[in-house]
Amino acid sequence: LVERLRPFTSTIFAEMTALADRHSAVNLGQGFPDTDGPEGMLVEARKALFGGANQYPPGPGRPELREAIADHRARYGTEYDPDGEVLVTAGATEAIAASLLALTGPGDEVIVIEPYYDSYAAAVAMSGATRKVVSLVPDGDRFALDLDAVRAAVTANTRALLVNSPHNPTGTVFTRTELAGLAALCVEHNLIAITDEVYEHLVFDDAQHLPLAAFPGMSARTVSISSAGKTFNCTGWKVGWVCASRELTSAVRAAKQFLTFTSAGPLQPAVAYALRNELSWVESLRESLRSKRDRLCAGLAAAGFGIRPSAGTYFVCADVRPLGFTDAEDLAWRLPESIGVAAVPVGVFTDHPAEWRHLLRFAFCKQEEVLDEAIERLRTL
Amino acid sequence: LVERLRPFTSTIFAEMTALADRHSAVNLGQGFPDTDGPEGMLVEARKALFGGANQYPPGPGRPELREAIADHRARYGTEYDPDGEVLVTAGATEAIAASLLALTGPGDEVIVIEPYYDSYAAAVAMSGATRKVVSLVPDGDRFALDLDAVRAAVTANTRALLVNSPHNPTGTVFTRTELAGLAALCVEHNLIAITDEVYEHLVFDDAQHLPLAAFPGMSARTVSISSAGKTFNCTGWKVGWVCASRELTSAVRAAKQFLTFTSAGPLQPAVAYALRNELSWVESLRESLRSKRDRLCAGLAAAGFGIRPSAGTYFVCADVRPLGFTDAEDLAWRLPESIGVAAVPVGVFTDHPAEWRHLLRFAFCKQEEVLDEAIERLRTL
Ligand SMILES: CSCCC(=O)C(=O)O
Ligand SMILES: CSCCC(=O)C(=O)O
Repeated sequence: LVERLRPFTSTIFAEMTALADRHSAVNLGQGFPDTDGPEGMLVEARKALFGGANQYPPGPGRPELREAIADHRARYGTEYDPDGEVLVTAGATEAIAASLLALTGPGDEVIVIEPYYDSYAAAVAMSGATRKVVSLVPDGDRFALDLDAVRAAVTANTRALLVNSPHNPTGTVFTRTELAGLAALCVEHNLIAITDEVYEHLVFDDAQHLPLAAFPGMSARTVSISSAGKTFNCTGWKVGWVCASRELTSAVRAAKQFLTFTSAGPLQPAVAYALRNELSWVESLRESLRSKRDRLCAGLAAAGFGIRPSAGTYFVCADVRPLGFTDAEDLAWRLPESIGVAAVPVGVFTDHPAEWRHLLRFAFCKQEEVLDEAIERLRTL
Repeated sequence: LVERLRPFTSTIFAEMTALADRHSAVNLGQGFPDTDGPEGMLVEARKALFGGANQYPPGPGRPELREAIADHRARYGTEYDPDGEVLVTAGATEAIAASLLALTGPGDEVIVIEPYYDSYAAAVAMSGATRKVVSLVPDGDRFALDLDAVRAAVTANTRALLVNSPHNPTGTVFTRTELAGLAALCVEHNLIAITDEVYEHLVFDDAQHLPLAAFPGMSARTVSISSAGKTFNCTGWKVGWVCASRELTSAVRAAKQFLTFTSAGPLQPAVAYALRNELSWVESLRESLRSKRDRLCAGLAAAGFGIRPSAGTYFVCADVRPLGFTDAEDLAWRLPESIGVAAVPVGVFTDHPAEWRHLLRFAFCKQEEVLDEAIERLRTL
C-alpha cells in the first residue's frame, strides 16, 4: 500500500457493521435505512432490467436522469444544462473522489470541516493534496461554523473547500449566514467549493437546506454533489451526481470516466423516475425520520446520554459523559458485545479526537421497533 | 483540471458512440453487446430488487458473490479465500484504478503493453506513477509479446506490470510461453502484476485463457481483475472484482472503499447466481461470438480490409491500407457520417500512433443483421 493511503486502511462503517453483525447487535452505526424506497421506483428498475437498459449508459449518465437531476436542482433556483453540467456518478463517494482527483493535487490545500465524513480525508490524500482541518464549535444547542477559523485556514495554496450540509455526523444544517460567509470567502480567495448535499431532503422542523451554489458568485465555482441513496432509501444503488459549471463538470468527468466509466445502468432510469414522481414520498420519509429522531433522542436522554439536537441527516450525537464514561471510542468498540448496540464514535471523523472523544453518533433511520430495542438495551448501560 | 489528467479529458468510446448516435451509424466502435444476458440472471436481479437488497452491500461485496467468484477462479487452479482475497468493484475500471492508486505512486514506474485500454494510462497518471510502454509486435497472423522489450523496460523503479489478455484491442490471447516469460520477469524483479482478464471466457478456436496468477511464483504478486459485463452481457451493471493475496487485496480495498465504497447492491446477487448457474449460457455466447467474428472478418475482407485475426475478445483489427487509406484515425472520424459505420482507431490506444495508424478496431458483439448492415455499408468504401 502506498504511503498516502496507509492511514486509511479500513472504514469505521465497515468495521462497526461487521462487529454489529458478529454480535447480532442493533446497528445504529452505519447510516442506512431498513425499509425500501418508493414502490414506483422499484417497478421502474424492474422495467429497465427487462427493457434493454443493461448495457453501458453514456459516460455522463443516461439523458433522462441528467434531465431529471437538472430539473430537481432548479427548485433551488440553480440552473444546470443536463448536457454538460450534470454528471451521474457511482454515489456521492465517487463524485467526491473524482472532484478531488480532478481539481486538486500536490501543493494544493483543501479545507475540510471537522468532524468530516471519512472519505474526504482519504480522497484528499489520493489526490496528493493536503487537508487543512477547521473544527465546528458547539454553540448553544448546535454546532456552528467558525468562519474566522475558516478564514485563518486559507493560504495562497488553498484550492478548494469541502462543505457538507446537512452535516454528517453532527446533524447540523448550516444557516444562511454561515453559508453566505463561506461563499464570500470562496469568492474573495478564488476557491472551488465542493459540496456534499446528500441529506438535502432530510432536514427537520424549521431547518432549511440552502445549496451553496445558489449564493452570489458561487454558481461558477461550486461542484454540487448529491445522490439518490438517502433521498429514496436506496443506499446500495450508489447513484449519485455532480452539478457544476461546464468547465468544472468536464474536469470532474475526466477523472470519473477512469474511476468507473459509468455504473448502475438499469437503476438510472428508476432514479430519474423517482426524482420526477416521488417527492411526496420523500416528504413522508422526512416526516417519519423527524419522528424517529424524536423517539431516539427521548430514549437516549432517558438512558442518561446528553443529546446534541439534530436538525437534519440520519444522525444524532450523544454525549457519553453524563453516564460516567469519558471515551466514546472505547465505549463504541465494546457496546456491540456488551449490550448489543452499535454506534459510531465521532472522534474517528476528526484530526483532534481528544476534543470529540465524548460523542457517539447514533443513526435513527431504522424502524421504530428497532429503535425501541436499541433504547431498551441502552438503558442497561 | 489538474495537469496529470489534461491528456485524458475524454474517452474515445464516449466520443465515438456520441458521433455514431448523431449520424445513426451502425456502432461497431464501443464494445457492448446488443442483446441481454441470461434470463435467469435478470430474474435474480428482480428478486433482489424486491427482496431487500437495496441498501449498502458490505464494502468488499456481498458474501455470496465473493464465494461465487472464488469458486469460479478455482477452475483455473487458483485458490482465493472469499473473505479477504476477493473484492467486488464497480466494474474492472474501478478495480484497475484502485489497484494503481493503492499500489503505485510518484517515483514508481508501471509497464503497460501497447496498444492499451485507455483507462490504464489515465489511472497510472492519477496514481502519480510513470507509464513505460512496450509495444506488441506483429508476428505472422498475431500480435506477439516482445519479452526482450519488456525486460528492457524494467528499471529499479518498476513497481508493476499491467497485463491484458485476452487483449483489447488486438484480440491477441497471450500464449503459455509469453505468460511464463512475464511471470519469470515479475518474480526476478519483484514486480506486481495487475491483470485485466475481463474477456477470459471470450476466446475462440483453440486459444485458451491462462491466468498469470497460476504461473509459478505469481499467486502472491498478482492482482487478478475480471468482471461480469462481458461474460454475461451486462456491461452497464459494472460489477467487477479483484482476486489477490490478502495483503494486496487489503491494499486495493483501501483505495476502492473511498472511490465508490460499494456499488450495484441488487445486481450483486444476480451475478453470483450467473457465475454458479449460467456457464453453459456463456459457452453458447462464446460460440455465437466466434461465428460473428467469422462473419464480420469475411465481410471486412470482402470490403477490402486487411484482417488481423482475432483469437479472443469482442474485437478484430483491420488494416485500412489495402483500401488505399493511410490514416485510420482520420478515417474513423469520418466514417459515421460518410457511410454510417463507427469503428475505433487503434492509434488512440498507443503512445506511438504513427506505428499503429493503419488499424481500425471493429466490435463484432452485435446481432448478425447489425453486422451485415455494417458490412454492406463498408463495401461502399
Ligand atoms: C458509505 S457507508 C456510510 C454511510 C454513511 O453515510 C454514514 O453512516 O455516515
Ligand atoms: C468502458 S467503454 C469501452 C468498452 C470497451 O471495453 C471497449 O470498447 O474497449
